[in-house]
Amino acid sequence: MFYVIGLGLCDEKDITVRGLEVVKGSSRVYLEAYTSILMVQKEKLEAFYGKELILADRDMVETESDEILRNADKEDISLLVVGDPFGATTHTDIILRARSLGIPTRVIHNASIMNAVGACGLQLYNFGQTVSLVFFTETWKPDSFYDRVKENVDLGLHTLVLLDIKVKEQSEENLARGRKIFEPPRYMSISQAVSQLVEVEESRLSGTLQPDKTLAIALSRVGGAEDQQRIVCGTLTELLTQPPEVFGEPLHSLVIVGRRLHHLEVEYAEAFAVDRENWRSVAQNVYGCALE
Amino acid sequence: MFYVIGLGLCDEKDITVRGLEVVKGSSRVYLEAYTSILMVQKEKLEAFYGKELILADRDMVETESDEILRNADKEDISLLVVGDPFGATTHTDIILRARSLGIPTRVIHNASIMNAVGACGLQLYNFGQTVSLVFFTETWKPDSFYDRVKENVDLGLHTLVLLDIKVKEQSEENLARGRKIFEPPRYMSISQAVSQLVEVEESRLSGTLQPDKTLAIALSRVGGAEDQQRIVCGTLTELLTQPPEVFGEPLHSLVIVGRRLHHLEVEYAEAFAVDRENWRSVAQNVYGCALE
Repeated sequence: MFYVIGLGLCDEKDITVRGLEVVKGSSRVYLEAYTSILMVQKEKLEAFYGKELILADRDMVETESDEILRNADKEDISLLVVGDPFGATTHTDIILRARSLGIPTRVIHNASIMNAVGACGLQLYNFGQTVSLVFFTETWKPDSFYDRVKENVDLGLHTLVLLDIKVKEQSEENLARGRKIFEPPRYMSISQAVSQLVEVEESRLSGTLQPDKTLAIALSRVGGAEDQQRIVCGTLTELLTQPPEVFGEPLHSLVIVGRRLHHLEVEYAEAFAVDRENWRSVAQNVYGCALE
Repeated sequence: MFYVIGLGLCDEKDITVRGLEVVKGSSRVYLEAYTSILMVQKEKLEAFYGKELILADRDMVETESDEILRNADKEDISLLVVGDPFGATTHTDIILRARSLGIPTRVIHNASIMNAVGACGLQLYNFGQTVSLVFFTETWKPDSFYDRVKENVDLGLHTLVLLDIKVKEQSEENLARGRKIFEPPRYMSISQAVSQLVEVEESRLSGTLQPDKTLAIALSRVGGAEDQQRIVCGTLTELLTQPPEVFGEPLHSLVIVGRRLHHLEVEYAEAFAVDRENWRSVAQNVYGCALE
């Protein structure tokens, strides 16, 4: 059997009991290499699972799937992925390949940011499409995601914005020379994300987002313990001007708050506001949310 | 500390390792009473966790939250919920109450249908708002959810439709007489859901859904083992005319497929089609999806 097992959001203990059993019983266990987005390192996972893990970067999962699937018709092979196997990065390719080889598969689900975002107090029902925001460079500022943000905003829906991660990136020089030397991982910060959003709005002038009138919620290390997870909310301007330590270490995600805002959502998130008065005032006066 | 712990989708082994540790260390453990939507009974959970569970129905969680939270400032108290604590039914009320009492809280996330729906092969990115569909009666056919379906369909997005569950329902007579006698639980079936959708379309004539041209995917017991989970897809008409045993036992969810359909999504779900030829043909000719 070929298993794809979600590890959840934070550390070695977020795997499910079923997932752990399968890992312990597998002949080979692959770990998709975005491990740094878990809050623990591979060695800690290995110690806890009592298993050696084979690192498989995204490229390997795509191009060497037959090696990963080798003998999975006769023994149990597991591929561990951060979050849920069908989260932001899906694993349908390798499952399709397994299927075509006649290998039975099973997915073991877990939390991902796509559902754990509810921790900010906004109702999952009121979310529209999720978008991804990539690092802008001087010459490359892909902004098609903004059409989707606008669709959500126009309907009054919340938008989950997933922030770019760069792991195993090569410098242009190393790439040109074929040197497998990788840059340190980079994670988009909240202020980068907000400033990119504002930059797109300023070039499009669509009125979709307004720095002082659009509310947003920053989520850091969702699912972590009390001293790890952090939720901070305010207007885009307020989030933009917070010092980095307010959000702390990666990973970060951002929610753009839509007009269909329930007073309980406002009240729940209020505890996380940069400025409670302003949070309530914008919710009431700009969003038209009737607060007590 | 007050913990709200997601149990995931299927059975006693879907809890996370962290969740299980907390349960074992808690002085009192409440189980939100929609237990029947897990695929196992309370007794099996108790045996596995090695703990007695106190049943707490929705009503109790709302009205007796102070009893649930009693001493949570000094000891660990856990509330177990099916899926994720911020899934379809959120638990913000009791967390707000804990906060106002100065009780620290922690949420332990897990999979919910809101992210595990990815198992059908459709990209979570391409989903719009999630809607809930309640049982229609002769005199009560609330159809405001259809506005949201239309918003999604108009944008070409997929829609996750959560199907109604009735537990602890009283007959009108028992309710009138104040007798706490409850009807057996009811779960909406796929054919009921599809026929209600078609009924609303027939009364509204909005052209949102077309029985022979709209594709949908039925999910049963998502997250279950190979012999439990079932995914079936086809046009609305095709799903409507399947015998009940095709979908099997509850729980069921339904996805209405949106126009923004990627050929990989079509190919992944093809294995689950009632009629592969027709699935591909509608995807190609009605949805305009270029298949190989």
